[in-house]
Amino acid sequence: LGVFLLLTVCLCFRLYQLSKAGKLCVPAMNVNDSVTKQKFDNLYCCKESIVDGLKRTTDVMFGGKQVVVCGYGEVGKGCCAALKALGAVVYVTEVDPICALQACMDGFRVIKLSEVIRQVDLVITCTGNKNVVGREHLDRMKNGCIVCNMGHSSTEIELASLRTAELRWERVRPHVDHVIWPDGKRIVLLAEGRLLNLSCSTVPSLVLSITATTQALALIELYSAPEGRYKQDVYLLPKKMDEFVASLHLPTFDAHLTELSDEQAKYLGISKHGPFKPNYYR
Amino acid sequence: LGVFLLLTVCLCFRLYQLSKAGKLCVPAMNVNDSVTKQKFDNLYCCKESIVDGLKRTTDVMFGGKQVVVCGYGEVGKGCCAALKALGAVVYVTEVDPICALQACMDGFRVIKLSEVIRQVDLVITCTGNKNVVGREHLDRMKNGCIVCNMGHSSTEIELASLRTAELRWERVRPHVDHVIWPDGKRIVLLAEGRLLNLSCSTVPSLVLSITATTQALALIELYSAPEGRYKQDVYLLPKKMDEFVASLHLPTFDAHLTELSDEQAKYLGISKHGPFKPNYYR
Amino acid sequence: LGVFLLLTVCLCFRLYQLSKAGKLCVPAMNVNDSVTKQKFDNLYCCKESIVDGLKRTTDVMFGGKQVVVCGYGEVGKGCCAALKALGAVVYVTEVDPICALQACMDGFRVIKLSEVIRQVDLVITCTGNKNVVGREHLDRMKNGCIVCNMGHSSTEIELASLRTAELRWERVRPHVDHVIWPDGKRIVLLAEGRLLNLSCSTVPSLVLSITATTQALALIELYSAPEGRYKQDVYLLPKKMDEFVASLHLPTFDAHLTELSDEQAKYLGISKHGPFKPNYYR
Amino acid sequence: LGVFLLLTVCLCFRLYQLSKAGKLCVPAMNVNDSVTKQKFDNLYCCKESIVDGLKRTTDVMFGGKQVVVCGYGEVGKGCCAALKALGAVVYVTEVDPICALQACMDGFRVIKLSEVIRQVDLVITCTGNKNVVGREHLDRMKNGCIVCNMGHSSTEIELASLRTAELRWERVRPHVDHVIWPDGKRIVLLAEGRLLNLSCSTVPSLVLSITATTQALALIELYSAPEGRYKQDVYLLPKKMDEFVASLHLPTFDAHLTELSDEQAKYLGISKHGPFKPNYYR
Repeated sequence: LGVFLLLTVCLCFRLYQLSKAGKLCVPAMNVNDSVTKQKFDNLYCCKESIVDGLKRTTDVMFGGKQVVVCGYGEVGKGCCAALKALGAVVYVTEVDPICALQACMDGFRVIKLSEVIRQVDLVITCTGNKNVVGREHLDRMKNGCIVCNMGHSSTEIELASLRTAELRWERVRPHVDHVIWPDGKRIVLLAEGRLLNLSCSTVPSLVLSITATTQALALIELYSAPEGRYKQDVYLLPKKMDEFVASLHLPTFDAHLTELSDEQAKYLGISKHGPFKPNYYR
Repeated sequence: LGVFLLLTVCLCFRLYQLSKAGKLCVPAMNVNDSVTKQKFDNLYCCKESIVDGLKRTTDVMFGGKQVVVCGYGEVGKGCCAALKALGAVVYVTEVDPICALQACMDGFRVIKLSEVIRQVDLVITCTGNKNVVGREHLDRMKNGCIVCNMGHSSTEIELASLRTAELRWERVRPHVDHVIWPDGKRIVLLAEGRLLNLSCSTVPSLVLSITATTQALALIELYSAPEGRYKQDVYLLPKKMDEFVASLHLPTFDAHLTELSDEQAKYLGISKHGPFKPNYYR
Repeated sequence: LGVFLLLTVCLCFRLYQLSKAGKLCVPAMNVNDSVTKQKFDNLYCCKESIVDGLKRTTDVMFGGKQVVVCGYGEVGKGCCAALKALGAVVYVTEVDPICALQACMDGFRVIKLSEVIRQVDLVITCTGNKNVVGREHLDRMKNGCIVCNMGHSSTEIELASLRTAELRWERVRPHVDHVIWPDGKRIVLLAEGRLLNLSCSTVPSLVLSITATTQALALIELYSAPEGRYKQDVYLLPKKMDEFVASLHLPTFDAHLTELSDEQAKYLGISKHGPFKPNYYR
Repeated sequence: LGVFLLLTVCLCFRLYQLSKAGKLCVPAMNVNDSVTKQKFDNLYCCKESIVDGLKRTTDVMFGGKQVVVCGYGEVGKGCCAALKALGAVVYVTEVDPICALQACMDGFRVIKLSEVIRQVDLVITCTGNKNVVGREHLDRMKNGCIVCNMGHSSTEIELASLRTAELRWERVRPHVDHVIWPDGKRIVLLAEGRLLNLSCSTVPSLVLSITATTQALALIELYSAPEGRYKQDVYLLPKKMDEFVASLHLPTFDAHLTELSDEQAKYLGISKHGPFKPNYYR
């Protein structure tokens, strides 16, 4: 169960490493990469919580602000969409050419952080990586620049580099620190580099419901599966369960699903009751 | 090669059927479901070609129009995003609860076709299915309603049901037919139910370049792979090739990729040169 | 000065009434209808504060929610744009056919409140009118419906009708009341019907700066104008001052204005230094 | 009537010049600045026709393209909104600080043309001015850059500067010329600098209907007004007529207007049947 829970907070790659190394001693289900979890906990939830978290902590106006979002995965996509819609000018950094090309097509300039760091009002990390924003970037930010992390744990901003003698820290309200340079420049650091969405905004009940349902179904499946269905490996949630989680949440939107006719199901070569897509479909 | 080409026109599920039935006699690569193909040929291209195709054929104004889009896969997502952005009120029909829930979260009412068929100005099919719009729907559409297909082949609209004695057809310009009911009601049918994006709009050179590159790389891989790498089965394009296709197209957008440091690559447990994501990542 | 300040809180029509009735005893400047005030205090500020105010009070997720916005003036336009962008399905009510037609073209269904009141999750008033949401509407809302006011003063929701014996009020957190019907239905009333943007969200410093600058310039103009320039009437802020207020705020966005050449100014028949538009231009 | 028609094609400032100079010898109505005309003919129509015109002439893909729009009036606002929605990165040039600040708040970088001219894929003029794009800009554009005019007449692009011996013109399809520099660089010039929306796209019937209704009502008003109501001056269309034009077009969207109660009309100090807004309201 411990292992299982880890998976929901985007650390599933650790499990795949364990599995590869032959060190995984129980079956594990990668709930994080189920479609509903990915889309709701990451894309849709972060789309709203970036706005919520920034407003509650800084009261910043988004219109006209220049923002750089590091990482264009599901979380980055959500952050970019919300900020663009509210009138910000958004830049994206990426290491993965596929995500970078998507950012281009969605209307974002893809640049290296150093190219825009002097001009931006906001820096948001969503990479799942470490030291994405380093001291060399922090030194070049302009006065008043807001820095926060939407990615994972607290590794994305190189915090240690800010805990030095020449920089002064001032807590201005809960979760908001001013880090003050010798020349008086202030950087607004949120949640000490921990996750903004968990620290400074709330998670809507719908998202919790979807994530919890997914986890519960995965546990039930692991527990009740016939001997041998799952080995000491990492599994994706079976598509049909993923679809079931989604279907349980449709009534809250008064959404009416269309049913396949027998003829249509036959044409598509699938059951009328799903799964409707191959397992790799997102 | 014949088999291979089929895959790029969204018919890959036929191949999986063959494979399941043990009837696939060559290795096949499902190029259609590579990320770059899916996103560019389906999502990004259709987002633009629905607008283009409708304007060229009908000169319709989108602002204020009520539209129903059948299917919220990549093609449907692209059509909905473009039409919503240009001021249309968009409804969605879906059979798959995961896609339906995504439509909800993106701000579209999910309904059954029969619920809105009397009021809409435009019906667009993007399901990959057959007889999604049947005679019972066509009978209830209002005068002037435009009907078109963005999905696959020409099965989505039940054309045969319109080839009857009591309905009169009038060709008003290339690719545009008025089907006229005995009471004078006219339905505007585009491209005789064939693909609007192929019949009535152009495919941007960028999209062609991406699709062609993907196909060429897949062919080279199939041809030059060591004996035994590919069996008589259906394969997804290796992630690294998918990423390579994307990276070849970044310079056209003056996009600058960030490179992982050695330390970061180690932290993520991946190579600095990719692949950057698991194969199922979209 | 008292009179003058009133104008900035959208009550300028009272002044025009006084003026028409010959009862205005000082010159007055309608700062509320200057372009910068209208756009920033009303459109741009409300676009963000509707999101902010709702999140802080209710933690509601916007994706998929059905919302009715009463009134499509600047405030309504801002609210609708933000909520649509964050994935809500938005309906609009209007009394003015011009604003109604704009709502249509921007992709919103224009309906009477009674047509959607049973199905919506959120009701937002932005009319400047009174009793827009009456007891007959409140009685028909569904359980959990959120009701708030972004318009003016506290007249838009018929509060008195909720202060009756059969309804129970429960304060669940500051600015949030549950009004409980005998059958257990709960309506979530924000700020007791007062302005959500002033009660439950903050006003960004940029907006305050623009409004304060406009007011200060208007006061200086009224004070220093030569005898006889302003009579006992209501005036719009001279266009040139409006433009000056805007120009003072451009550097914060690193925006670079283009200068007219002599030849271009002559062609347009205006001064190189403005005013650039006729006074009625918005 | 001749004078009157001029007003509808954005040349009303000429009339105001005549009027100021005491040379206007008939009453004239500035139909161009009625709200319905401004919004429909300029904002909403151009929002769609920029997309339509560019697709029909060049088949360009918008996703990821860098675009500069010169002028952020109603036409510029429409063009920017459409292109941003379809995934372009849009820059704006402006001479008027109010419009410039609006562009900032809507998420567009406001720059001087020379700052971005080397990097953009598309240049669109919407200023109503002359020589906005001069030879010095054209010389610095990159190969393949598309240049077009959405503003007024054909003055915005300095065409004369391209009719010189060292540049070669090649007509590649109707309305599309390649202007070829000695080094082989090609600029794609649309409609020889004339209005793209009139030359290369169609005007939707709804827009024509609104404009024609507005003109017809203005003519009727001028013709049937009692002696002395209109002097040799320029007038805006009376608000009530503007509202009437809008109301005539609501049924096509199945839009349902709300009626003011007697009590509400009294509270607002207006008639139940309008006009609902002061004349300067847009």
